[in-house]
Amino acid sequence: MKVATVRNGDGSTTAAVEVGMEAYLPLPAADVGALLQNGNWRDVAAAAVQGGGPVRTGTAVQLAPLLPQAAKVICCGLNYGDHIAEMGRELPKYPTLFAKFADSLAGANDRIDIHGSTQIDWEAELAVVVGATLRRADEQTAAAAIAGYTVANDVSMRDWQNRTLQWFQGKAFDASTPVGPAMVSADEFPAGHAFAVRGYVNGELVQSGNTATLVYGPARLLAYISQFTTLRAGDLVLTGTPGGVGMGMRPPRFMNDGDVLRTEIDGIGALENMIRIHPAGTNTPLLKTTTKESVS
Amino acid sequence: MKVATVRNGDGSTTAAVEVGMEAYLPLPAADVGALLQNGNWRDVAAAAVQGGGPVRTGTAVQLAPLLPQAAKVICCGLNYGDHIAEMGRELPKYPTLFAKFADSLAGANDRIDIHGSTQIDWEAELAVVVGATLRRADEQTAAAAIAGYTVANDVSMRDWQNRTLQWFQGKAFDASTPVGPAMVSADEFPAGHAFAVRGYVNGELVQSGNTATLVYGPARLLAYISQFTTLRAGDLVLTGTPGGVGMGMRPPRFMNDGDVLRTEIDGIGALENMIRIHPAGTNTPLLKTTTKESVS
Repeated sequence: MKVATVRNGDGSTTAAVEVGMEAYLPLPAADVGALLQNGNWRDVAAAAVQGGGPVRTGTAVQLAPLLPQAAKVICCGLNYGDHIAEMGRELPKYPTLFAKFADSLAGANDRIDIHGSTQIDWEAELAVVVGATLRRADEQTAAAAIAGYTVANDVSMRDWQNRTLQWFQGKAFDASTPVGPAMVSADEFPAGHAFAVRGYVNGELVQSGNTATLVYGPARLLAYISQFTTLRAGDLVLTGTPGGVGMGMRPPRFMNDGDVLRTEIDGIGALENMIRIHPAGTNTPLLKTTTKESVS
Repeated sequence: MKVATVRNGDGSTTAAVEVGMEAYLPLPAADVGALLQNGNWRDVAAAAVQGGGPVRTGTAVQLAPLLPQAAKVICCGLNYGDHIAEMGRELPKYPTLFAKFADSLAGANDRIDIHGSTQIDWEAELAVVVGATLRRADEQTAAAAIAGYTVANDVSMRDWQNRTLQWFQGKAFDASTPVGPAMVSADEFPAGHAFAVRGYVNGELVQSGNTATLVYGPARLLAYISQFTTLRAGDLVLTGTPGGVGMGMRPPRFMNDGDVLRTEIDGIGALENMIRIHPAGTNTPLLKTTTKESVS
């Protein structure tokens, strides 16, 4: 089952279930996070499909960030074994974690407007949607609490990220992390399924990895995080990016104004976002209202 | 004007205005964050005081975290000039920032239950409560958007904090950061007021600083943060801690089970929290429901 959060055109959003190619049937919840508060959300969606009703298709579908009100967005860095090996580093003993806010998230096809950065980089990632409360859970319990998987790009302002030792400020720009297009429920994949993750800039493949090489796989990561903070339905965990980021290139390569970033995971879907670069301090309207210019 | 968030005994909370020594009059809002959504919150509180009504006093007052639903909690590290100088470091060109979640916060007198850490340290801090939307704001606009000031202790699990380069996991333990007892509205202090900040462990003074030596004062910090993410009424910004943390001592000193941490700021008030240390992985009830054992 594939669920998404779609915009209604009046600033509000609605959770919806995919009923065909780019065809979504609205569900009785404001977004996927709200939908997941109901432990029987699959039954709710199945009943809606059976009941029928007006389906939104094609250009009528405007995807919002999958979890526009996520209470917790936690990201893992340095998590792909092959990338760590190629960099000559040792496998980490603990996952490197940092946080974003719900405001950091963008829709699957939103334009991403960045102010005051000249080092905008890409990080294609598998993201995990939490479906149940986890607190000091073991890995098996964590695995059972995964609601589903989605695609994210942890777009990183490297100049801001490297201003200090803490990456946060370069990772938490408003509306900079696209998440979607939909969440595919965990039951659609066998346990331990390996996802192929790819990133493209203007059609050129720049990242290609496979979650089989993750040091901390989804369940292990959730179990670890739950040792210090409670995870709940609707929280989002980004699992890290494979090799091929711009900062790692010689010379480093960053995005230009108008570049299109595409992020794909086989079996889930693709994000496609145009990057727009603005001067620092330009007091344009709130990003949340300027992200409707779509690139696909 | 002093406002706080008090517990009702049934899991819910209520914003309240201080009308005398440890005497609070409930206001029509679930917490201080909800109260601040009304730009005229001072008038709401003044009208309630004029209208009278049942006042809660003494042991009937159970303080919740000041902002139990804060959408953004952003913390600054390495911000006291005297402490940086005594460590032989240069003044930072940019503020070091990291994030917490609302779940990280605790009430002013809550017991703090920590699982799986043996290096629990203290960080007494002035915290700033945002009162209006700030986005790419200048310092003057940011100053005008400060709703008030409160006391926080950025209790840090140094073993977790130092597991990786990113401090987040040692800073975001559930219910580990006491905030309160109340917010004193900004109009009670002259512009640029210097706050005396002190921390005590079991009655022994371990930290004593003054915000006059902050590299990034409250308004400058808010203006900086607003360049990358929108701040809104009810968001919380911790301004960093002065010298005297346990990790900086030779040998390092950490808290023991049963220790009482006191955090004071002149003109605002004091936090007093008992620290309880538990083994890792102990699956005790949710921290939010086990924090009612008070130490004052």
